[in-house]
Parts: sequence; C-alpha cells; structure tokens
Amino acid sequence: MVRIAEIVGADNLLVGDAVSERFVHIWKTHIPLAAVAVVTPTSVEQVSAVMRYCHQTGLSVVVHGGLTNMVGSTETSGIELVISMEKMNRILELDVNSKTAFVEAGVILEHLQEEVKKVGLMFPVTFGAKGSAQVGGMIATNAGGLRVFRYGMTRQWVLGLEVVMSDGTVISGLKKLVKDNSGLDLKQLFIGSEGVLGIITRAVLRLSPASGGRHTAFVALEDFGQVLVFLRSMELTLGGALTAFELIWKDTYQRMCGVLKGGGIPLAFGYPLYVLLEISTSTGGTSPNLLEQLLEKYLEEGIVLDAAVASSESEQNRFWRIREDVDHLVSQCTFDQHFDVSLPIADIGDYVDGIRRNLDAEPGVDTYFVYGHMADGNIHVVVSKKYDSVDLIERVNNLIYSPLTNYGGSISAEHGIGTHKKAYLPYCRSKEELDLMRRLKGALDPKGILNPGKII
Amino acid sequence: MVRIAEIVGADNLLVGDAVSERFVHIWKTHIPLAAVAVVTPTSVEQVSAVMRYCHQTGLSVVVHGGLTNMVGSTETSGIELVISMEKMNRILELDVNSKTAFVEAGVILEHLQEEVKKVGLMFPVTFGAKGSAQVGGMIATNAGGLRVFRYGMTRQWVLGLEVVMSDGTVISGLKKLVKDNSGLDLKQLFIGSEGVLGIITRAVLRLSPASGGRHTAFVALEDFGQVLVFLRSMELTLGGALTAFELIWKDTYQRMCGVLKGGGIPLAFGYPLYVLLEISTSTGGTSPNLLEQLLEKYLEEGIVLDAAVASSESEQNRFWRIREDVDHLVSQCTFDQHFDVSLPIADIGDYVDGIRRNLDAEPGVDTYFVYGHMADGNIHVVVSKKYDSVDLIERVNNLIYSPLTNYGGSISAEHGIGTHKKAYLPYCRSKEELDLMRRLKGALDPKGILNPGKII
Repeated sequence: MVRIAEIVGADNLLVGDAVSERFVHIWKTHIPLAAVAVVTPTSVEQVSAVMRYCHQTGLSVVVHGGLTNMVGSTETSGIELVISMEKMNRILELDVNSKTAFVEAGVILEHLQEEVKKVGLMFPVTFGAKGSAQVGGMIATNAGGLRVFRYGMTRQWVLGLEVVMSDGTVISGLKKLVKDNSGLDLKQLFIGSEGVLGIITRAVLRLSPASGGRHTAFVALEDFGQVLVFLRSMELTLGGALTAFELIWKDTYQRMCGVLKGGGIPLAFGYPLYVLLEISTSTGGTSPNLLEQLLEKYLEEGIVLDAAVASSESEQNRFWRIREDVDHLVSQCTFDQHFDVSLPIADIGDYVDGIRRNLDAEPGVDTYFVYGHMADGNIHVVVSKKYDSVDLIERVNNLIYSPLTNYGGSISAEHGIGTHKKAYLPYCRSKEELDLMRRLKGALDPKGILNPGKII
Repeated sequence: MVRIAEIVGADNLLVGDAVSERFVHIWKTHIPLAAVAVVTPTSVEQVSAVMRYCHQTGLSVVVHGGLTNMVGSTETSGIELVISMEKMNRILELDVNSKTAFVEAGVILEHLQEEVKKVGLMFPVTFGAKGSAQVGGMIATNAGGLRVFRYGMTRQWVLGLEVVMSDGTVISGLKKLVKDNSGLDLKQLFIGSEGVLGIITRAVLRLSPASGGRHTAFVALEDFGQVLVFLRSMELTLGGALTAFELIWKDTYQRMCGVLKGGGIPLAFGYPLYVLLEISTSTGGTSPNLLEQLLEKYLEEGIVLDAAVASSESEQNRFWRIREDVDHLVSQCTFDQHFDVSLPIADIGDYVDGIRRNLDAEPGVDTYFVYGHMADGNIHVVVSKKYDSVDLIERVNNLIYSPLTNYGGSISAEHGIGTHKKAYLPYCRSKEELDLMRRLKGALDPKGILNPGKII
C-alpha cells in the first residue's frame, strides 16, 4: 500500500476501518465493503501507475463507479483493491458545434444531463439511477433505460474512449468522430464489458439536439396479436416520431396504478393489455392533435379497445409515474426476484404466456408482474415469493430463463451478467461464444486481475 | 486442393485458368486474379471445414464479397485461397413483426433492399455500389453511405452475426435482439474488421419502418461559420426530421453541376459554399411547406444567401444527381487520388482551408474537389494531378492526412484501411492502439491466415 500511497497521495487512499465503513453512506447498501484498500485516483496517469503496480504484484482490482449495478458487477471478496472513480468527475469540454461532451469517467449522469441541457443539447441515455450512476459505469455496462427505442443504448452515444489496460497501458481513442473506420474499433470491446477487459477513464460522448414536445397516451388492447398490429401501424404512420411503446399486462397495470392513490387512473382496469406510448415532436413538426386523431381511427377500427391521451404536462407525468415507479410495485412484493430479459418482438406474447403458466404452477410464487419496453423486445418480470430458499430462487430463475433459449432470447437485456447471472449465461450464449470471451479476457488481462469472477 | 474439393464439391472449386480469368467478368477490374484457388462454399459448414483445413495446413485465406472495396481489402498476392461468398446468397427470413432480416453473407445489398421494401419495411444502409456489394462485405467494412446522418453506419443495423474463426470454429450469435447485455458483445469485434479476425457467414439485420416523404433543397452560404449556425438551427427546429446535410465547396459545386448539361442548375455559381439538405416526413407528420417557410426565414435573417427547394420528385432526383454522380467528377480528373477523412464537425472549415493551401502550393496538383457528409464530420477530397509518381502520390497523401492528427481526425471515415492506407494509419491511431489491434489479431488468428497484410 506504501507504493500506492506514493502514486495517488495519502488523501486518495483508504485503508482499515475507512474501507469497511465506506458503504454506510453510499446508496442502497449497508454491508461493509470488503477490500484491501480503496483508491480514489484523480488522473489517468494515476490509474495507469496503480495498474502497473497491480500487474507487477498480481493484486486484483474492482472498479467502483456509482454502485448502481444490479447484478453484482462491483462485488468484492476482500482481496481486491477498489479503484473508485468519484474524484475523476470533471466535464472537460462541451463542444456545441461538434455536439460532443468530453468527460471523466466519474461524472454523475444527471450532472452531465443538466450541463448539456444548459447549452441547448441533450444526452439521451437516462435511467432511474441517473442521480448516482457514473458515466464510466454507464459505458462499462452499455446501459439502456427509458429512451432506447428512440435513441438506442449507451453504445450508440460513445464516440471515443480512453481505457487503462490491466498492465497500465493507456489506450487513448478520445476522438470526436461520428464515422471512423481506421482499423479495429477498439472502444467497442470495452463498452458493456463490465470492467473485465480494461478501466474506462475518460470518454467522448455524442450529444443530440434537444427533443421537442411530446404527447403521451395509454391504450388498452385485446391480445398480443393486436398489440403487434397496432405497433406496426403506428410505426408506419409516425416513423421516428414514435418514441416510447411500453407494454403492461392486466394485473400489473392495476397494481402499478396504485401509485396514484385512486386519483386519475388513465384507463379502467380489466383490459388484457395496456400500452403507454409517446410521440415526440419537433417545433417545426407534428400537429398537436395528431395523436388524438390517430387513436380515434384505431378505436373505430377496433384495433384498440380504449385510449386516453394526456392533456397536460402534469397528466403526462402521472401517466409515466404509473410505469416508472417500480419501487411502488416492488414494495408490494416479498422475497422478490427481478428479471430483465429480451427476445424477438414477435415472440413476446408467446413467451409471457409460457412463463405465466410456469409461475402459476410454482407453489412458492405468490404473485408476479410483467411489463417492459415492448418495442425493444425487452420484458421485465418481478416475482414475489411466499418464502425464500436457494432452491426456490433457482427454480424461479430457471422458469424465466430456460424458455429463452428456444426463442433466441437473452437473460439480460440491459443489466448485464456480473456475478448474479453467470450461472444462467449458457441459456443464451454458446460454448464457443463463452470460449471466445475467455480468449479475449486472456489476451487483454493475462493475469486475470481486472474485476475477477465477473461474467466469465 | 483435393481435400477442399471433397469439402465443397468440384462445382465449387476453381483452379488454374478459371482463377486468373475470373475477374474479367467482374465489376471494375481486368487484372487477373492471383490465388491458388477460388472456393465458393454453399453453407456455413463448408466454410468451417475449409478453414479447419487451412488452419491445419497454414494456407492463407482472402474472402471475396462483391469486390467493391476501395482500399485493397480483398487483394491477393497469389499464395492465398479465395473464399467467395457468392453462392451463399439467400435471404433466409424476413420477420415483419420483429423487423429483422436473416441473411447469408453473399446476399447483394440491393436485392435485400428490394425484398425488404416488398414487406413494407426498409434496410437503411445504402451506397453507390449497392448493386454489387454483398451484405457480408458491408458488415466486415462497417459501410456508411448516403444515410448515415439519419440512420448511422452498418454497425447500428447488425443484431446478430455468425462468424467462422481462423481454426474453423463457428461463433453463432444469430439473435434478433435489439438489447442484449449478456456478456461481451462479440459481434462488435467483427463488424468493420475487414476480414482479419473471422469470416462472416450469416447475419441478422435490423430493419426500419419505411420512411415517408422527403423535401430537398440547395442552399448557398457565405462561410463555414454560417454553415455551422445554419446546421445547428435546423437541427434544433427539425430534430430527427433533418436527414441529409451535404456540404460542397464553390468550385466543386460548379464542376458537379456539369452533370446536368446546363439544364436546371439549382443555384447560381460563385457562392462560397453550398449545402444540399433533405428533411424526411412521416405520413402523419410534417407540413409540406415547412421547408420553404424555414428557408425564407433564414434568407431574411441573412444566414443563407440563396436557396432553392425542389418542387417535384424529378427535381429532387436532379438535385441529388449533382452530389451523387461522383463518376462525373472523376471523369474530369487525371491521375486522381480519392480521400475519405473525418474530423470533428466544428473543425471542418479550418481543416479544408489548410489542405487547400497545401494543395494550391503543390506543383504536381492540377485541381481538386471537396465535398462531404458535413453533419457526420466526413469530408471527401478528390485530387487531380498533372502526372503520376510514387513520390507525388505520397506527398499528396501526406498533405491530406498529416493535418488530421492535430484535429483528432481519421484517415478513413468509411472506406477502411485495407492495404492502401496502412502506411498512414499512425496519423490517427497510436502505437498502443495498433499494438492492441495486433494482440487481438494474435489471439483470434494465431497463425495469421485470415486476410494477411490488411490493416495491421
């Protein structure tokens, strides 16, 4: 630790009690942090020097960003050095003309969003944990969130990366380029790699023109086939202007509406399926009554059973709160398990019918909720159980994950694999794929010191 | 070759004169093909078996798609086996609900576009060579083209890949998933890798709802600063509806207009800069006179000097022919060299001023043309020379490429590196980046038999 203190300075090294007490004040965990030390570097050079030392001595490293990961990707076992990026939190440049942000990895997502907004632009990746999540973690997990249908995942918004490799080598690709086919696109390796291949220290992010107005509606439909017809027709009519299409199953909708405490439920309970949709408009663009007119047509044609368009911004926010306030849903659950799967859009109805049968037949299951980013093929399932046991947890995991293999689905649309989902990875990745992941890991981190035990 | 004939059948193996004569009938080249043999596999299993044989015997392989690459990525030296994908040309599935196409690598891009159109969808990647280019090559080079500003590069439209590795191992990731964070996203490695890491055999491509109408205009502006103001303002007003923004320098515009043979030039010659722009509208959306109204406002404010909106589809096509008929421009050149660079959008004006000074001062240069996908930061330069010599070619390359280092630019926005640009790669990629590319190459193709000599 003496050598590390020399590299980063005593102010940037925590040891002993300072390590174990660290998590008491950090978001959503009260478990003592188990690590040999925590280092808070202030520059790329420090990260590089720390990694040279770790590489020489074989000391393992776990990088901590905002600790909002949901699959154990930042877990430690006690023998690792934690590198926390919290002090590398500067926005180094906002280039309005090139529409780029040059940032350190420890910048909090919400802070970035706010600063970008001030210059009339937008960083479109956003999700519930934005107030704690750091840009480096967002990139390392290829975060998705609420605007993927319109704007894509984080990968699409990373133009350049600086990465420190396991031996301390700095791979600097901090370009502001939208198009760059000059050899292998190395940054793609590190985006979504959950820290097992390198440490992201700085990034150039792409920014978007701010979006214009939005119109929001809830729609009720008879069955999944009608939802497909409705989605296709809306996309054909609206093209890129359709920016959200969230599907919620019957009982889940009713429970979700509980968050409104009875006031202003958009549509009556009891319909088989509900869709929350949004269209975005630019100031030059779409007429304000377009959504009403469109939905009237679908009502007349019998494609939708009922519809409610939000008539004010506060009503829009109320509509969205129904879908977004997952905490409300979770608060009604016991021994809950959360799933974030993806599959081909056309197969969602079938898949959900199947897992409902599975869950209904499992005596340990109390209730469950199903909803998701339908237009992205991404379904969330929350399972509430009557009791907890390792066996039951595994059974429920298998009920949700095993049918995905036949559909060519994924056990993790957004959240990653970390440690929690590792055992189930073979449901969606072949032996050859896993071997290739290991080969890449071996080539880039031959001593296996970067985030050991995660993914592979 | 006996073993290879056993694998693929005699019908799928060319040797001797059949090899050297092969190129006479193929697009744009009359140079005899130098290769030990050409194999035309009809299945993934055949490609895999051929690669197992090549790996055992150390035989090098060059994959041929539509041979429309512009940087020598499909060049052979005579000692390689050519694997041509032409017989793996089936569209295996179009899934309208999931908006995906499952295709073999040898499918011609234009054929795919046509079939997709028949089911009411669109595959948005398109470029001049679409009538010959194959999907596998498009992916292996991360092709860009005419719609990148709106739709992104090929990378954005690849959902799943099947790749045969150098030892014949098949990495099958043929998923239809928009979101999939289940471990390392292996396909990203192969997209844009120019065949040095693996052979793409099949792919799942994402499809888009067909776009609606379009409105096209030519605009004249005073200087690059005004172009930036104009672009920013248009993006703010139109958001995603602004779908093309092509910048053309003064003399280049005049020469390009020659393709119209005097009839219907959109704007007078002599303005410093011209922009060809397009807005796309969905059927639900934008009002038809929006573009006229907007441009009138910019004229009044003095941001643009002159503007012409195409009033019919044939006029739109005429406007686009000016920009797209690069053959017309090239036909006026001698000993021409072509460049495809990218840089931060804000720096384009500066960079072009600099290379113009460089080119004006070079006695061997006759004339040159500058134009490009401004909103993507992608500039094309065509240099016409008075004579040809290795020295002059190198001097011109250095005039164009060397200033890019300071701007953080790229020597290849779209076309790739191949053999032609290899020597100049250090202008935009660091030693550490090149070392990492070599490390990846070594890990995935330890015998170096895949497309030897390309990129690195």
